[in-house]
Formats: sequence, structure tokens, C-alpha cells
Amino acid sequence: MPQFEPQDPDYERRVRASFARQRIMETIGATLQLVAPGEVEITLPFREDLTQQHGFLHAGVVTTIVDSACGYAALSLMPPETGVLTIEYKVNLLAPASGARMLARGRVTKPGRTITVCAGEVFAEVDGQEKLVATMTATTMTIRERPGVSD
Amino acid sequence: MPQFEPQDPDYERRVRASFARQRIMETIGATLQLVAPGEVEITLPFREDLTQQHGFLHAGVVTTIVDSACGYAALSLMPPETGVLTIEYKVNLLAPASGARMLARGRVTKPGRTITVCAGEVFAEVDGQEKLVATMTATTMTIRERPGVSD
Amino acid sequence: MPQFEPQDPDYERRVRASFARQRIMETIGATLQLVAPGEVEITLPFREDLTQQHGFLHAGVVTTIVDSACGYAALSLMPPETGVLTIEYKVNLLAPASGARMLARGRVTKPGRTITVCAGEVFAEVDGQEKLVATMTATTMTIRERPGVSD
Amino acid sequence: MPQFEPQDPDYERRVRASFARQRIMETIGATLQLVAPGEVEITLPFREDLTQQHGFLHAGVVTTIVDSACGYAALSLMPPETGVLTIEYKVNLLAPASGARMLARGRVTKPGRTITVCAGEVFAEVDGQEKLVATMTATTMTIRERPGVSD
Repeated sequence: MPQFEPQDPDYERRVRASFARQRIMETIGATLQLVAPGEVEITLPFREDLTQQHGFLHAGVVTTIVDSACGYAALSLMPPETGVLTIEYKVNLLAPASGARMLARGRVTKPGRTITVCAGEVFAEVDGQEKLVATMTATTMTIRERPGVSD
Repeated sequence: MPQFEPQDPDYERRVRASFARQRIMETIGATLQLVAPGEVEITLPFREDLTQQHGFLHAGVVTTIVDSACGYAALSLMPPETGVLTIEYKVNLLAPASGARMLARGRVTKPGRTITVCAGEVFAEVDGQEKLVATMTATTMTIRERPGVSD
Repeated sequence: MPQFEPQDPDYERRVRASFARQRIMETIGATLQLVAPGEVEITLPFREDLTQQHGFLHAGVVTTIVDSACGYAALSLMPPETGVLTIEYKVNLLAPASGARMLARGRVTKPGRTITVCAGEVFAEVDGQEKLVATMTATTMTIRERPGVSD
Repeated sequence: MPQFEPQDPDYERRVRASFARQRIMETIGATLQLVAPGEVEITLPFREDLTQQHGFLHAGVVTTIVDSACGYAALSLMPPETGVLTIEYKVNLLAPASGARMLARGRVTKPGRTITVCAGEVFAEVDGQEKLVATMTATTMTIRERPGVSD
């Protein structure tokens, strides 16, 4: 896995402050864990009120946490005075999202001036073991000088 | 747009019953609207507690409703005694998800015995106009004889 | 389908000139057909030497023509003195690519200053009928002032 | 990286025989290299007649080799008397595909009875160094008892 040098020495505080503004995270009960250069982890305890019809977490909930993990992994490498937007992502759902807790990990695959590509994984903690339940590839964009979009 | 013939004459009741079991939908305030052969619509009023850091609906929330719209569009064409699972999807985020209400529409592109591919769109209602904010391509699978996965 | 206004009045000549520089197109025998604002069509007669192991056109060949159709649909709406690059795409393979000729159509879903999103379709001509064999969603980027990347 | 146990002891011969039937590979000059359980590598020397308008290998050519690498990685874990089809893939193009030779590597992320998901990477060999130029996520399907589709 590549090592990245952050352009903003204050990257961790910046990511944590932006995450704190994502009101959805409080609504679903997700917590920001690791913030490292090019890598972010978010956890989500299982909740019945976030499930789909078979009793698993809805794919959209899994996507929510891994999208934020990828977006903030990208932001951790962006220069000061910029913002991050997700342009698109693709998610493969590999196993049912059941288990006591989900761990979403986002990592930068390729940083760039405008486009940063990230890879995400979501693990379910089942009986003390981690099981891979989803993968994401996300394309994010560094936003400069757009009112309302800074992080 | 192609016309589809449902294999299950009871498709609408079946889709509505399955949707009613998606607890996430009640949690976020989404409502099932149209259920037609190969086409489903879901609406979601804007809510501050579902937003990301810039005040727009989080991409994961947008994904949640359009994933269900696509999955149920697929289910509407599946034979009785089967269930639907989403294998993967790809979402492009075209504009910020702001506006009074979101409308997610899922349509079957290609039905199949095992694999059904769907196209989804999400529109934001802004000042009485519809604005396209996201597109989805979803690949779903017809599940036969798997305990816990029937719809 | 939306109507688009080209920013470059010379868009058609520009697309045709760029296509003529894609040496792969001559190699596989593909031909540029329609060039309209936000829409491009490319055809490819079936050839045995482009097949995969079951005798169908290889998915990569199908992708080649629909990627160019999408990229040039995007370019048709870009301002003069810019270039187009594809950032990413997703392809669903819906049916075997067999038949006398393939028709790839790319259309702009959402143009933008930096990012333009396109939808592509590939049809096989089988017994005088068109059969949808693949769909693409492509994200392209307008390139400014990068040596070697202008169209 | 996970270790996989092939279900078909003859997996390598089977993959090599199927690759030999992909006529496109001979046409573009690609060679099958490593065949291991759940992992396949294919190489392609640069050729001017496979380029796009800026002189790089066309994205569709890059896709061709990494799609086959992913598909055969999946096939290497499939039971005897089955065939492999790619349902869909997503490709991110990270850097221009220039350099003396491309190396495409496909690896199984998650094998399954019906659906097997793979991750692919393409590296360009530039001045003796490997540079990542593209990533793929591919969803493949195990085909049973379909005439014309066995590997």
C-alpha cells in the first residue's frame, strides 16, 4: 500500500470537523475512527431501523459509510482551502450486511490535482471475525472556489 | 421504453409488502409511489438530519432510495416464490441533492432468469421543476430457495 | 432526450478529425457515423479475429467502440482548444455480441465545465433487428492546457 | 490476499485452452502469463495500431486484457463442466496507457456458486518501473448447461 504525504498538515482536524457536519452520521449512529494520510475508517453498530426487507443493513446504509470513508480519505490528501465532492461510485455487495458492527475503510488508490480515486471496503464483525461484505471504487473531485463547497 | 409482462399477477401487492418490511424507509421517511411492471418510484422529502457536510442529502441516502426503486422494479418481473438481491450498482452524482423532495425511479433495462439489470434516476424537485441529480445502473439477482431471502 | 447547444460551431469536423487519429478504429474496422451535438454513433462489422472463446465479440471490443462513442459525444459539447479524457466507465453486458454488425451510440446525460457524464448503448444487428447487447455509463473530463491532450 | 483452493485440479490447462480460443488476443498480441488459483496475468506489448487519438493505448484495449485476466481468474476457481461470462465491469483510467508493455492482473475478491467478483489492475512498464494505469472491478457468472458457453 502506498504512503502518502498530506499537503495540509492540519488534515486530521479538517477531516474530523467536516465529518462532524455530516448530520446523517449522527442519525444512523456512525463514528469516525482512524484518520491517516489517504486512509479513513468509520464504524456503524447494527441497528434494526436501518435494515432492508430481509433484516440486513440496507445497501444504501453500507454505501453511506463507505462513501464517507472514501471521500475523507481523498480529502486528507487535498490542499488547504479546497472541498471534496464524490462524482461517482460503484459498489459490489458480496455478503449480507449482518453482524454486530460494520467497519468501512476508504483508501486512496491514486491522488490527483483534480481527480482522486479511492477504494473502499466494508467488513461486518461476526463472532469476533471480520467478513468482507462490500467493496467500493469511488471517484472524487477537488473543488476550488465554489461557494458552499469547502471542507 | 419496453413493455414488460409480469410473471406474477400479484406483483404489486408483493412489492408493496416487501417495501413495508424495509425499516430504513420509515426511518428516513421514504414512500413507495408507483409500482408498475418493470418500473417503481419512491419519494423522499428533504430532511436536515440526512445531510452531508455541505447541507445536501448524503449520496448514500440518494442511493438508498434509488437502489430500492431498482430492486423492486426487478422484483416486479420475477416469478412467484423468489427473492431479489442487488449484486452491485454504480451511481453518478450529477448535481447536489437539494430541493423539497427527491423522486427515485427504477426501470428494468433487461430482465433475465438469473440476472436483471436496471436503470435508476433521482430527480430533485426544485421550484416546481424536476432536476436530475443522480443516475444508477444496478445488477440484481433472482434468488430461489435460499432461506431468509424471499420477497 | 435533452437538446444541447454546441460551444464549438466546428464540433463535427473536430470530432471526425480526432476519430481519424484513433488508429485502433482502423485496426478493428470501426466507422464513425452520426455526429450530432451530444450524440455520436460508431459501427463495427463482425469479425472473427475480434472474438472471445465462445465466438462472440470480446467485451473489450464492444467497450472500445462505445467508449469512443461516449467520449466523442462529450467532446461535441466541449469548448474549442480543449481535449477529452475518459476517467472511468461501467459496462453491463446484456447479451452475447454476435450479429452482422454492432452499432454503438453515446449520448451526453449531463454536460459540465469539467465533468461530462454520458450513457452508451451497443446494439447488435441480428436478422434485420437491433438487439441491445451492452450499456455504458462513462465519466469524461474536459482537459485544458495539457500538452499532448487536445482534440 | 486470500488463498483459494481450485475445484478443478485441471484449472491451469483449462484456462490456457480457453485463452487460446480468444482470437482477439492473437490479433492484438497479448500473451497469457501466470495462471494460479484465483489469479491470472496477461501481458501486451505496446503497438501503435492499438492507440487512441493522443497516442496512448485505447482504453478499450486496456479493458480487453484486464477483462480476460479477471474472467480467467474467476474460471480458475470454477468447477469442471462450467463456463464463465462477464456480467459487468467498471474501469477507472488512472494514467495514460503508454510504455513498452502492459501487464494486466486479475484476482478473485470473492468466489461464489453463481457470482464471482474480481479485482483487476493494469500496469505500464515505463523505464523498468511499473506504473498503475487502470483498475477494474468485474462481476462474473458461472454458467452451467448452456450450449456454446463452456470453458
